[in-house]
Amino acid sequence: MGRVAVDAMGGDHAPLEIIAGALLAAGDGHEVTLVGDEAAITPILDQLGGELPVVHASEVIGMGDHPTRSLRERPDSSIVVAADLVRDGKADAFISAGSTGAAMAAAVFRLGRLKGVQRPAIASVIPAPKPIILLDSGANPDVKPEHLVEFAVLGTVMAETYYGVDPVRVGLLNIGEEPGKGRELERVGWDQLTALDARDPLLTFVGNVEGRDLATGKIDVIVTDGYAGNIALKTAEGTISLMALSALEEIQRLDEAHRPGAMAMLEALRRRFDYEHTGGAHLLGTNGVVVISHGSSNRSAISQAIRMADEGADRGLVDRVRDRLAADLEAPRT
Amino acid sequence: MGRVAVDAMGGDHAPLEIIAGALLAAGDGHEVTLVGDEAAITPILDQLGGELPVVHASEVIGMGDHPTRSLRERPDSSIVVAADLVRDGKADAFISAGSTGAAMAAAVFRLGRLKGVQRPAIASVIPAPKPIILLDSGANPDVKPEHLVEFAVLGTVMAETYYGVDPVRVGLLNIGEEPGKGRELERVGWDQLTALDARDPLLTFVGNVEGRDLATGKIDVIVTDGYAGNIALKTAEGTISLMALSALEEIQRLDEAHRPGAMAMLEALRRRFDYEHTGGAHLLGTNGVVVISHGSSNRSAISQAIRMADEGADRGLVDRVRDRLAADLEAPRT
Repeated sequence: MGRVAVDAMGGDHAPLEIIAGALLAAGDGHEVTLVGDEAAITPILDQLGGELPVVHASEVIGMGDHPTRSLRERPDSSIVVAADLVRDGKADAFISAGSTGAAMAAAVFRLGRLKGVQRPAIASVIPAPKPIILLDSGANPDVKPEHLVEFAVLGTVMAETYYGVDPVRVGLLNIGEEPGKGRELERVGWDQLTALDARDPLLTFVGNVEGRDLATGKIDVIVTDGYAGNIALKTAEGTISLMALSALEEIQRLDEAHRPGAMAMLEALRRRFDYEHTGGAHLLGTNGVVVISHGSSNRSAISQAIRMADEGADRGLVDRVRDRLAADLEAPRT
Repeated sequence: MGRVAVDAMGGDHAPLEIIAGALLAAGDGHEVTLVGDEAAITPILDQLGGELPVVHASEVIGMGDHPTRSLRERPDSSIVVAADLVRDGKADAFISAGSTGAAMAAAVFRLGRLKGVQRPAIASVIPAPKPIILLDSGANPDVKPEHLVEFAVLGTVMAETYYGVDPVRVGLLNIGEEPGKGRELERVGWDQLTALDARDPLLTFVGNVEGRDLATGKIDVIVTDGYAGNIALKTAEGTISLMALSALEEIQRLDEAHRPGAMAMLEALRRRFDYEHTGGAHLLGTNGVVVISHGSSNRSAISQAIRMADEGADRGLVDRVRDRLAADLEAPRT
């Protein structure tokens, strides 16, 4: 198993839930190192009755801070120190539930980008019956068509690595199925993805897809810019919350005899869709395994994120991405 | 009640389901005129055993046709003739389940835009416990910050007109809550919406909102560009389908005793969230009441859309928008 560095100071419930999550993961056999303020971490470890190695970091980058500026101004912040453990070969992956911008900046500036990647992207997994990988889901609000091609390659490697999909079906998120729909980004992106399909035997570009294709099973990977990807992801979260709320209202209206069954189903759906328990999302395209967790992560989500980071390291996610990009760069562009 | 012109030729299930929906609405007392190919419509009316006035139109604009070009080339298409009935005062509203682009083009070029509106927008209603109006949900893929201000005004009038909300809470769809998040559109839009809030006593700009705010009850109107709005809306639809599929799977895993209750709840949620039964969405900002229906609309959805169009005419939606825009244009801009 790999060694996972955990930013103990990032997230809405840091450091308590982060440390508790790290202890859960360690209990499952994962090798975890906490990174952050020792004076804050040690008493919590004592309180929780656990032991874990701690690497001290004296500073923290907050949610409201400017990511790249903070990185320069606070070189001893927990996220930078966690990234440096990976860079220096002292850890195989790092995770953070803090500012996405800061985690992304730390990954890009401390680990570096892989050759062929201009825009590392966040790859989120949508829990459809066959999981769908959506990227970019928030790292890059504005992108160019060629970045959509990078996202397609990154997502394809992840679909192969985690789900054994071959060939991987890639769709372009759009507002209609016909070519020519959408903004200039989608119109030019459609052409470039069609060219990628022609030169890459491991993926199939299925064309434009819409949000409703989440449920149709026709795609493994969806590519879009980080603005639309993030909107889609959070709208899915909001819709799930809205349905859960509505379900509670409807349960009150059911016959009393039907209520226990309805509650049992609601609980089953909650377990399946609770994004606070899905752990996190890989940041793909940098020279190291990086998992970004939801800011609201509780201990269970953090332990899942650590498991995910470990799995990424274990399966050689970064080497696979590197190899694929190299092959793609050498392939003739049509 | 108002007189509603119905494009009988637009939609995946036209003309049969459109005509059947029109008959349903007429049965409820709505005054409906069908517009389209008489030779196609009359036998269906006979088959369904109903009578409705028909205005003949010899052409149809399809889903794949270029909207504005088709409008010029096919002046006798059903959507153009339906729009002209409104322009000429022979109907008070029109509805179409055909190409959104063509309906939008017909509305803009045949009815005209209201003074102060550069970009008419589609206002969709999200069935939260307190309904939320989302615009633009697909008419304008690319917009400028000042168009977000127009959308805020249009959505506010609709929230007042339909739901009696006062003051209307308007949010800007974004990828984080803090000002400064998002693309240039959102950063500049945030400033302009803040200025609108200062000069317009009837609305409150609550700042950036995320997809998950669909369930928090903190907003009445969400503004965004037509690309992101459409993605959000269809992702919500896709998520609902995905949850319904998942619910069916989970029901198989429940104790047999719990299954009837679970099925009853699933049915209740289906009724509540089935977008095929929500009817349609108002196109706001043109000089007439226009309702755009989902392409997959069945007869029930069409009858709902007719009811919606009639309600818009009845409540003076267009005059209210016109008055509000005039007041806004006269107000000092801060």
